[in-house]
Order: sequence, then C-alpha cells, then structure tokens
Amino acid sequence: MILVNGRPADTVDALDRGLAYGDGVFRTLRTRAGRPLWWRDQYAKLAADSAALMLACPDEARLHAEICQVAEAEEGVVKVVLTRGPGARGYAPPPAQAPTRVVLSAPLPAYAQAGAPEAVTVRWCTLRLARQPRLAGVKHLNRLENVLARAEWDDPEIFEGLLCDDLGGVIGGVMSNLLIMKDGELFTPDLAECGVAGVARTRLLRAAARLGIPTRIGRLLPAAILAADEVMICNSVFGLRRVARLDDVIWPSARWATALNDALYEDLD
Amino acid sequence: MILVNGRPADTVDALDRGLAYGDGVFRTLRTRAGRPLWWRDQYAKLAADSAALMLACPDEARLHAEICQVAEAEEGVVKVVLTRGPGARGYAPPPAQAPTRVVLSAPLPAYAQAGAPEAVTVRWCTLRLARQPRLAGVKHLNRLENVLARAEWDDPEIFEGLLCDDLGGVIGGVMSNLLIMKDGELFTPDLAECGVAGVARTRLLRAAARLGIPTRIGRLLPAAILAADEVMICNSVFGLRRVARLDDVIWPSARWATALNDALYEDLD
Repeated sequence: MILVNGRPADTVDALDRGLAYGDGVFRTLRTRAGRPLWWRDQYAKLAADSAALMLACPDEARLHAEICQVAEAEEGVVKVVLTRGPGARGYAPPPAQAPTRVVLSAPLPAYAQAGAPEAVTVRWCTLRLARQPRLAGVKHLNRLENVLARAEWDDPEIFEGLLCDDLGGVIGGVMSNLLIMKDGELFTPDLAECGVAGVARTRLLRAAARLGIPTRIGRLLPAAILAADEVMICNSVFGLRRVARLDDVIWPSARWATALNDALYEDLD
Repeated sequence: MILVNGRPADTVDALDRGLAYGDGVFRTLRTRAGRPLWWRDQYAKLAADSAALMLACPDEARLHAEICQVAEAEEGVVKVVLTRGPGARGYAPPPAQAPTRVVLSAPLPAYAQAGAPEAVTVRWCTLRLARQPRLAGVKHLNRLENVLARAEWDDPEIFEGLLCDDLGGVIGGVMSNLLIMKDGELFTPDLAECGVAGVARTRLLRAAARLGIPTRIGRLLPAAILAADEVMICNSVFGLRRVARLDDVIWPSARWATALNDALYEDLD
C-alpha cells in the first residue's frame, strides 16, 4: 500500500524534483504490530535531514498515522520519501514549496526475519565514496554510489559490501553503518564528509553508553577492521549483525554483538 | 506534454528507482520547428551516460519520434529522463530491467530566447563539488549539489554560479560548462573527477578545431579565470554566453565568443 500526500496512489508527478534531481530525503524503518519501531529517533532523523536540504518536514502525528495506516499487521518495513515536490525546469528550489510525501509498506526482507543468521559475510567494494560535507550523514535521494557499489557483487552469500572514501578511510556498508569493538571500546567511522548517519548507529552508541562501553568516533582504516575483536554492521531494518567473515579473516566472537543487539531493542520508542 | 514510455501521462510509478535513488540519467535539449537540435550529439551523450550506469538506452529512432511528438511548434526545450525503472526495495539493480523513459516539453526559457543578452554576470558558489570519478561527466539524476549551489543566490542579475571542486580547481557552472580564451587558446576544465561533460562543450571544442583555435583540457584555477582574455559558459539550452562580469572583474571583449557562437550552430545536426 502506498500513500502519496496522505492519499492512496501508485504514482507521483512526473515533474517531481525527487525524480528530476533526487531532491529529497528518505527513511526506511521497521514496523511491528502495525507501528513504527524507534519512532522518536526516526522522526528526529527525518526532521534533521529535511532541515539539511531546507525541506519542510511533515507533521509528526500525521506522518505517524500514515505509517500505521500502511504498515503490515505483523512485522514489516515502511519507507518514507520526502521530496521538494513538483517543479518547473531548473535547479533553483521554487520559492513556494509543495513537498511530496510518499509512505509505502513492504514485507520484512528474509534477511531481517527472526530466523535469519546473526552472523554475516561481507566484502570490500572497489568504489570509493566521494566526500561532500554538505550532504554527509544525510539520507538523501542521491544514492547512485550505493547502487553502483551494490552492483559489484551478486553472490547471495555476501550480505554486505564495505566502502572506503577516496582517502582510504572506511565509511560503512552499502546499506548499513559499521562499528568495531577493540580492547573493550566501541569505534565507528566519523561521517562528517560522507556516508549516512543511520538511526541504528545512533541507538547503538547510546546503548553502549548505557552498558558502560566507551565509544569513539573517528577515522578508521581497513587495517583497524582486520585487527578488531568484533565487527558489526547495523541498520533500521535488520538491526545489528555481527560480521563473521571478511575475505580470509574470521571473527568467532559474538560477546559484544550479542550484548549490544539486546540493548538496541531495550528502548523500543 | 509528457510521454512516459511512449504514452501520454502525467505521472511515474511511485516505486521508480529514479525517484528512490536518482538511478538514471537525463538530457535537456533545444528544439526548433518541432525537431531536436544537435541530435547526433545528444543521442550519443545519452547512450554514453546510459552505458556508464549500465542502463539500456532507448532506440534512437523511437526516441527521436517521441521528442518530435512533444516538441513545441517553434522554439522550445525537451527533457528526456531515463531511469532503471520500478524496483523492489534495495540498492541492487534488478536482474531484469524495465527502464522508464520520460519525454516532456517546456517553453524556451526567457534567458535562451533570441532577444536575451549575449553577455552575462556570474558569481562564485561556496559549495565545493565532491570528486567521484565513477560518475564524473555523466548527466545523472543525482543533482543535489547543483540544487544546493543554485540556492546560494536569488539575485536575478546573476545568470550563473561557478563551482570549484574540493581541491580548488574550477569545474564549471551550476547548469553550464565553462571555457576561457587565453593567448589565442581555448581552455576548459578536465571533468574526469566531477562535473557534467555537456554536449555544447563537446561541440565548442569541435568548432574551435574547425576555426583553427588550439584547445586544451586540464586543471583550471580561479586565478586563471580572472586572467583570461574571455570567459564563456555554454549549455544545450542557451548555447554560448560570454561572461561580462565576475565579482569586480569585467571582460569587455566579445571577439572569440562571437566567432565560437556562430560556429556552434554551423552544424545543426
């Protein structure tokens, strides 16, 4: 089921700036029993990303109601797309904006279901992310880098690809954020220049603080991943997965990942 | 008038990957007497850009016919948008692609009409373009940098903004390519790492060769612009405009710009 600006619809205006320029943001969130999980964080992130693009964010109560309206009865996924709306030709944002709001549901993917393996295999992508501080962290609709990176493999055994920026720093996965444990500390890449600062990452950093695990955000080189005690990826759909294998490196330990995964869901709001 | 996959329509599928990820390319071209100008170059560029994204390019004769079908009777603009089509969730390009082809017409903008001034004022943008060799040169649908850069000014006296990359090299205008004349040589920025290699730029380089003007493509610093004998910008809609002013610098000469503009239209195909 799809709602466009609150009304059931299958299409959007062919002149929408979301299509013309990727001029918008999105959220992909998990629902349970017809309600969005982690709603406060999801809405806060949508509001922050909208502000980064000078887009008006929809009213929280209205958006929540629309998500509940389309959500699957049990477990599911809802995607919210927010664009600058239809526009004439030209890059200049129109003075009077009429944003487009698309809310649609999808079944929970197999990899996110209860029986899915909690440990996954990942690979390195060859594509290097460009650094653009004005868009870094934001989940905007310009996602060609992710599309090209994801097209690098079709082996179903590979769950995720890891991406570096053009300076060789590790940024994260194609569809996920990356975290490592090393000597009792939780470390995740700084996303001030590229990447998406996802809600699951924010919640994991908060959960770590509750568990008394020191956290650090900074530059992370591939060698640090290989030397980590545990490697984890996260997003709002599958939550947390520990990385069991990257090329020839194998991580048997699940101690920290299990604790963090439990803590991630403690606060369902 | 809008054609979507050859049929009159005002909308596209809400699940289209063009909207979801900016997963596609576009062309904006000028039409005259209901036919596309510079058609061979326009189609060649669309084909090259499609290939860069592993998209199937529409058949040339069919696309030409659709452009003629929507084009204004006299002067006008036609935009062609080509996306990877509707898709399920996830960045992975679907194995069986069903591309979406949007062909729409618009009146010729005032700034491109016969009476428009041939000399314009430009400014520097503060946004720096990110360097992404995998997407550089391609007119893809990930255009948030252009949107943010164009939002930096609303003074109608300013025709265009000039953009540098993060290393400080000049790349071009928000909606145009940039060329300078210096000591009898035509110089334009290298677009191997960012920017769009437009059709008007390609045609100007060819026209210069016909006129016996040496051409050079390379790294261009802001100081070189200020020291140029003439500065020009070009795109497929307005053709060529000479830059008369950038901040406090004024260029009175129009000698090369006039010759190049004439040559740009010699070969209408």
